[in-house]
Amino acid sequence: MKLYLAGPDVFLPDATKIGKIKQELCAKHGFAGLFPLDNEFMPDTRVTLSKAIFDGNVAMLEDADAVIANLTPFRGVSADVGTAFEVGYAFARGKPIFGYSNVKGDYLARVHQTIGKSVAMGEDGRPYAADGQAVENFGRFDNLMVAEALLANGSDVVKPEADVADVLRDMAAFERCLQIADAFLKRSRRVSAVR
Amino acid sequence: MKLYLAGPDVFLPDATKIGKIKQELCAKHGFAGLFPLDNEFMPDTRVTLSKAIFDGNVAMLEDADAVIANLTPFRGVSADVGTAFEVGYAFARGKPIFGYSNVKGDYLARVHQTIGKSVAMGEDGRPYAADGQAVENFGRFDNLMVAEALLANGSDVVKPEADVADVLRDMAAFERCLQIADAFLKRSRRVSAVR
Repeated sequence: MKLYLAGPDVFLPDATKIGKIKQELCAKHGFAGLFPLDNEFMPDTRVTLSKAIFDGNVAMLEDADAVIANLTPFRGVSADVGTAFEVGYAFARGKPIFGYSNVKGDYLARVHQTIGKSVAMGEDGRPYAADGQAVENFGRFDNLMVAEALLANGSDVVKPEADVADVLRDMAAFERCLQIADAFLKRSRRVSAVR
Repeated sequence: MKLYLAGPDVFLPDATKIGKIKQELCAKHGFAGLFPLDNEFMPDTRVTLSKAIFDGNVAMLEDADAVIANLTPFRGVSADVGTAFEVGYAFARGKPIFGYSNVKGDYLARVHQTIGKSVAMGEDGRPYAADGQAVENFGRFDNLMVAEALLANGSDVVKPEADVADVLRDMAAFERCLQIADAFLKRSRRVSAVR
């Protein structure tokens, strides 16, 4: 089974090393890990590098049986938008999505902590942040469109119980996702074998 | 033709009014505008409100012929992740995506301005931000997965030429997207009629 390893890991200076570590952990759990591209290759000269990376990642997503997404907040209160795009793509293609964040806590608490809390509750019953915009209050770790795509297969996001020292590289939650994906995919195979 | 109106507009205190303005502009250009949900309805008691909103938005995306996404940066340097999810979903379902941002300028400049610029160029040839992570340098307005999904149908993101007073509510770029979508969809209908 092939897993697409979505996440902002590609932006790390040691992205190649991190990709290898993730692929080795995948292999340990019986999976092949497909690590997305950022700028590792020279494209066909008729297309831009940006388009070549996009096409390459979409082809890998198509090839994958499931996705493990690193949804750790990236340059803001939420996950990396490239990763969110890929979660949406995979969901639309019926692929199970598993995900983790190396930052504990809910979206509402994080927005209030990062952006600041609005003094008053909105007239619409929604909590607001200091930026004057509402904050989703569903006990989810991020925007509900991303959160519910994971919950759709019964696997909630994996979060650390305590603060993680290196949120960009810690592999404990990633490895927990691999265990969850393994159990889920074995279960689905048994169900489809019975049918 | 139906357009799904993706964007963080749902988080505005006047979201209902903004949704109506967008739907009226859609109607003016011959479209039906499908405005996403945030918390406007009471779901079936067997599911959570979060799940009901997710399912409702996915059903509207399926129903839509194309998407217009508000990709104005939201609580960080990038677009709203819920919107990025929806762009990914729509792209996977083969629906043309049009988009706008009410903030001018490229992703690289915005990251350097917001996060801070790293002094040195990376050894990998990529520019870095002060957070120690690489920044895509493809002249796009945001992460390439989102940017290329728009370019795939030949329609680049619409951005303002000058600073916009109310980036959360200005409709000029949205209306430009409607014109682009109208021209694109008329052209595709002509092409499919010829075939």
